[in-house]
Amino acid sequence: MTEHVRVVEVGPRDGLQNEREIVPTDAKVELIRRLVAAGYEDIEVTSFVRPRWIPQLADASDVLSALRGVQGATFWALVPNERGLERALDAGLSGVATFMSASETHNLKNVNRTIRESLGALREVIGTAVAEGLRVRAYVSTVFGCPYEGAVSVERAVEIAAALREMGAEQISLGDTTGMANPRQVGEVIAAMHAGGLPLSSLAMHMHDTQGAALANVLAGLQAGVRTFDASIAGLGGCPYAPGASGNAASEDLVNMLNNMGYQTGIDLDRLCSAGEFIAEALGRELPGRYHKYWLGARARREARTA
Amino acid sequence: MTEHVRVVEVGPRDGLQNEREIVPTDAKVELIRRLVAAGYEDIEVTSFVRPRWIPQLADASDVLSALRGVQGATFWALVPNERGLERALDAGLSGVATFMSASETHNLKNVNRTIRESLGALREVIGTAVAEGLRVRAYVSTVFGCPYEGAVSVERAVEIAAALREMGAEQISLGDTTGMANPRQVGEVIAAMHAGGLPLSSLAMHMHDTQGAALANVLAGLQAGVRTFDASIAGLGGCPYAPGASGNAASEDLVNMLNNMGYQTGIDLDRLCSAGEFIAEALGRELPGRYHKYWLGARARREARTA
Repeated sequence: MTEHVRVVEVGPRDGLQNEREIVPTDAKVELIRRLVAAGYEDIEVTSFVRPRWIPQLADASDVLSALRGVQGATFWALVPNERGLERALDAGLSGVATFMSASETHNLKNVNRTIRESLGALREVIGTAVAEGLRVRAYVSTVFGCPYEGAVSVERAVEIAAALREMGAEQISLGDTTGMANPRQVGEVIAAMHAGGLPLSSLAMHMHDTQGAALANVLAGLQAGVRTFDASIAGLGGCPYAPGASGNAASEDLVNMLNNMGYQTGIDLDRLCSAGEFIAEALGRELPGRYHKYWLGARARREARTA
Repeated sequence: MTEHVRVVEVGPRDGLQNEREIVPTDAKVELIRRLVAAGYEDIEVTSFVRPRWIPQLADASDVLSALRGVQGATFWALVPNERGLERALDAGLSGVATFMSASETHNLKNVNRTIRESLGALREVIGTAVAEGLRVRAYVSTVFGCPYEGAVSVERAVEIAAALREMGAEQISLGDTTGMANPRQVGEVIAAMHAGGLPLSSLAMHMHDTQGAALANVLAGLQAGVRTFDASIAGLGGCPYAPGASGNAASEDLVNMLNNMGYQTGIDLDRLCSAGEFIAEALGRELPGRYHKYWLGARARREARTA
């Protein structure tokens, strides 16, 4: 029996939010439809942060209303606070994702709150979301290292993850915000999370490929028992801490590796690659995903041969 | 005690041979000097194939004579046959690398010989090289999959590797020519090699990042006991089978991951990154290495902040 691994597509939110070129709402909706058609069961489609902060995602409500009636996947959106949650509820969403950091400095710079303040605020947000019948994922950023502080306390990260889960988040997505993780550390962090009372099924890994080790870290996570991984189509997005550097792990790379290893993802790689080509064209730029480039290049070579 | 992992730099040969822009001999020599200064003990510096085949490396003898007197590293060169070996001996080389494929079609297309013919010819080349006091590495390409045939017989690959070792090659470098390997397969192949009589210390892995899994495959190799990995600075080179796609695993990505995992490589990452910047400028193009881009981007950001 083949084992299932869940891939959560975050390209339309985490990917696009780092792209300068504003993508028309129609193109975002088309991308998401194609991702559903490729077989995704979980897609993070937008964010309800203040439109002024992330103009790319200012059309969150429009995207969601255009998706009404699209079946087959759970659509998730990022919510920073109670106000974001209200907008998400108005939009008829079924899943929300909250976020905070495991390092004090990154949390302060990102959400202008201490970790203690974030935990207090999220208790309200998650509590309300769960009471309203929403599913909740909670991101914890900088678990594997902080661009400001360097090493991050594993004990602290475990405490935060456990607190978020106790508040009602069904899954904690451990973020490697600037790709600082290494496979040995991943094994240690996952073991510490498990020892700290978090079931492996409640954990996801959200790895960035900034330093090139995203898939190696995913492999270490698989070996440690994690079965949910976030990824961004064609490696959409980038790293706000290093211009030109890679951001999220690329979905095609991840799905291809999982397929080749015999895991079952339910995602059609060829359809996924077509969706990657679609968003690359919509953005009018080359995207960094390895398999994405390989797929485009292999097709170009085939076409040159038959021309 | 920290464990040593040997990284063999193949950028000046395997990387450059796939770059269209001809790099002046001086720049190649400067690159190699910088790689030695960064701490490499093994550098594949050029190739003695017919100059007409690979114009980029037509200056092989000049590169080697300019490197005479440079201490601290073993310089390796690719030799296809007895004639190449003679040129390498004349150039005063201390190490040569031979090559053949584990799949019949790739071997025919690449060297115009059957596998049996290649083994016969290499028996002569390796025998002569060893008799002349040279060290020999032997590449076996397409071990993890063939762009023409698909799956490749592990038994066949083991037989070839064992034969090459028996001929006198001190190390067999298992090539993943178009990045088709996956971590599960790597574990199986290495175990089969070991069971087939090849000591783990006689094995190297030469992984390509075409499909994005190079470092994950390296991790699987480390876990299986391999301690030598080939890599190309800044991901120099590309994939001849898919225009625009990635080629060799990038050295900076590999060294950074190994450092972070607590392995000792003897290579100074910052000097390595500087050497990568040097060759990117010499080529006048952006190179694909992740850590290379991250390092350049992080510096640009620092400079923008202090400006």
